[in-house]
Amino acid sequence: MKLEMIKQLAIPNDTKILLVVIDGLGGLLNPDSGRTEMETADTPHLDRLAEESGCGLTIPVGYGITPGSGPGHLALFGYDPFEYSVGRGVLESLGIDFDLKPKDVAARGNFCTLDADGLISDRRAGRISTELTVPLCKELREIVLPGVELFVEPVRDHRFVLVLRPTGRKKLSGEVFDTDPQKEGVAPLPPKPRAPGAKSTAALVADFASAAMKTLAGRKPANGLTLRGFATRPELPNMPETFNLRAGAVAAYPMYRGLAKLAGMTVLPTGETFGDELVTARKHWDKFDFLFLHYKPADAAGEDGDFKAKVATLEAFDKAVPAIRALGADVLMIAGDHSTPAVQAAHSWHPVPFLMHSKWIRQDDARGFDERQCQGGSFGIFPAKEALPLAMAHAGRFAKFGA
Amino acid sequence: MKLEMIKQLAIPNDTKILLVVIDGLGGLLNPDSGRTEMETADTPHLDRLAEESGCGLTIPVGYGITPGSGPGHLALFGYDPFEYSVGRGVLESLGIDFDLKPKDVAARGNFCTLDADGLISDRRAGRISTELTVPLCKELREIVLPGVELFVEPVRDHRFVLVLRPTGRKKLSGEVFDTDPQKEGVAPLPPKPRAPGAKSTAALVADFASAAMKTLAGRKPANGLTLRGFATRPELPNMPETFNLRAGAVAAYPMYRGLAKLAGMTVLPTGETFGDELVTARKHWDKFDFLFLHYKPADAAGEDGDFKAKVATLEAFDKAVPAIRALGADVLMIAGDHSTPAVQAAHSWHPVPFLMHSKWIRQDDARGFDERQCQGGSFGIFPAKEALPLAMAHAGRFAKFGA
Repeated sequence: MKLEMIKQLAIPNDTKILLVVIDGLGGLLNPDSGRTEMETADTPHLDRLAEESGCGLTIPVGYGITPGSGPGHLALFGYDPFEYSVGRGVLESLGIDFDLKPKDVAARGNFCTLDADGLISDRRAGRISTELTVPLCKELREIVLPGVELFVEPVRDHRFVLVLRPTGRKKLSGEVFDTDPQKEGVAPLPPKPRAPGAKSTAALVADFASAAMKTLAGRKPANGLTLRGFATRPELPNMPETFNLRAGAVAAYPMYRGLAKLAGMTVLPTGETFGDELVTARKHWDKFDFLFLHYKPADAAGEDGDFKAKVATLEAFDKAVPAIRALGADVLMIAGDHSTPAVQAAHSWHPVPFLMHSKWIRQDDARGFDERQCQGGSFGIFPAKEALPLAMAHAGRFAKFGA
Repeated sequence: MKLEMIKQLAIPNDTKILLVVIDGLGGLLNPDSGRTEMETADTPHLDRLAEESGCGLTIPVGYGITPGSGPGHLALFGYDPFEYSVGRGVLESLGIDFDLKPKDVAARGNFCTLDADGLISDRRAGRISTELTVPLCKELREIVLPGVELFVEPVRDHRFVLVLRPTGRKKLSGEVFDTDPQKEGVAPLPPKPRAPGAKSTAALVADFASAAMKTLAGRKPANGLTLRGFATRPELPNMPETFNLRAGAVAAYPMYRGLAKLAGMTVLPTGETFGDELVTARKHWDKFDFLFLHYKPADAAGEDGDFKAKVATLEAFDKAVPAIRALGADVLMIAGDHSTPAVQAAHSWHPVPFLMHSKWIRQDDARGFDERQCQGGSFGIFPAKEALPLAMAHAGRFAKFGA
């Protein structure tokens, strides 16, 4: 559904919607057991909840499309991920809790190793440790460029974020091509404008790159750098206004807080575990109509290709289900931003198990929370961006359409 | 998914995708047995394959839409059939292996019988035999029109194809109204332009029609003709480029070779049976990333309204399944361009059984290959144009979308 339509239909109510995102939720069969992670995990509370809920499978972005974290979450926040996107540089900034301003341009950076001819011999400089990256970033931050303030922020290992912030009336553009050639044996590319208005930004980046090369010259193993994903903060329509909801976000990981903030949600300070998130949610429960809670461990285990570990994260989540239910949401959704099958050790395109609990749910035959049960659920297979509109309906927060 | 998006996501890999289209695959219940053609057919190899695959149902074009061969196949080649279409005249030319050039205008022709007042008394001239149509076409080919070369090619029975080919700089248009009034008791219509740029083409067609009337005058039963479906070759985006695949087509019937050629695939010469197609596929296997194989008999039996014969064509296909699997595709799809229920003796709008075999498939409970089993499959009911994008994902040929 279009956001304009949602805005027209959204009406106030005193009901509460809770969206819990299990990152990387869906999986694939373990070839030994013939069962997925969710089918393997012992999750009595989730199974009980699924039995009392309507189930289904969400398509995060489109058929066959494997989403990054950005589009996977934007869809669950009600946005069409084809229409609204978050650039790599912006996402990386969100991931380190960097307070990106509307006029900033951000890029993801890699320290790399160059050979005697200036060609990349290691794209990740031997994955140097964060401890080595931190002082390098500090040095690069001393580079002076006209009309902009410069940030070089370490991320992890060989990764950093470059942010250019205009100090005066200068206007920067994110339309700059990557300098990362994505392969070894060639030199980093010169930063070129991708649009006419990006010339001066590209020139600034070129100045930064050449100054950085001088600073790094002779260092080992990081004597060079590459940049990619230049982007400015996207102007997303405000989610709380569109849906007429006081919307809050509780996430232990910065990137997900950042995505919620881009959507216009109020980000609540919390701790480092999902247990902390639940404490935070309980504390602020009365002040919000909608809360988003993020559970990261399932995705991390899936990306590691660790089937058993992913099963364990689901079992750990299950133990939190009574506390989640105790919050007393009128509409509770358990969803995923994308599948991360352990056998693929990566995000995937497979539809993601979904459940919604509310008193207006249409009952189905799902007797547990897994891919197979959800496939036969009453919501069928549907686009993830329709989950929030469906929740609005179940929460009595959508007016009738048409006379 | 939009083709532009597909083009952005498509990445190379050394995997192979095989699309086998069973023309007119889906059916309806036989009122006597309460089982469809697929449920009736004894197809152990297909059933086994379905058990090891992900199943679903494709909607060829849209809800309630009965597709012709053109849109049914274009969708499976990844095109939105609403956006890209193949005119009737072009399709008929493809069906007789006529080498249509980009500037040609083609139309489907019928010989008909006119009464003393010039009104159509038989739209098909008593379905005269091909043997009678061939010499008539030869005579009409002698008609001379200024600035164009003329082709009048027999199809079958009373049907022929008219092609106008500009010899110099003349530009022809396919925007000419049918002269076929689609009913008897009225005269053939004068060819009128449907767009301003089509005036001179309409005039040429009028000249052809009046010259043809003179040639045919007094003949029995074919003393007149009608023309419909004027069209030029559509400019389809190149499928192999869009999907970044070396794509080949193997089809015993000319129309399907023609459709594949319009999509930009390499058409491989083959024999007249599906067995010949398999030999051809095996021979050229290494040279392609994607192969399309076409199996015609199911549709023909369905159109004849012969339930038993359609069952037999499915059983015959089943015997070829081991050879299909032996090709060793990483992603194997068995699909249909549309349903052709024998009880309707015609193409229909019903969703079409679909299966995909690959190591990344999400297992489902389908234990056979038929309409009912596919309905509960892990792909659900989905647009046929998404089948190829899904295959691309399973083949590891799509990059991640978004950061």
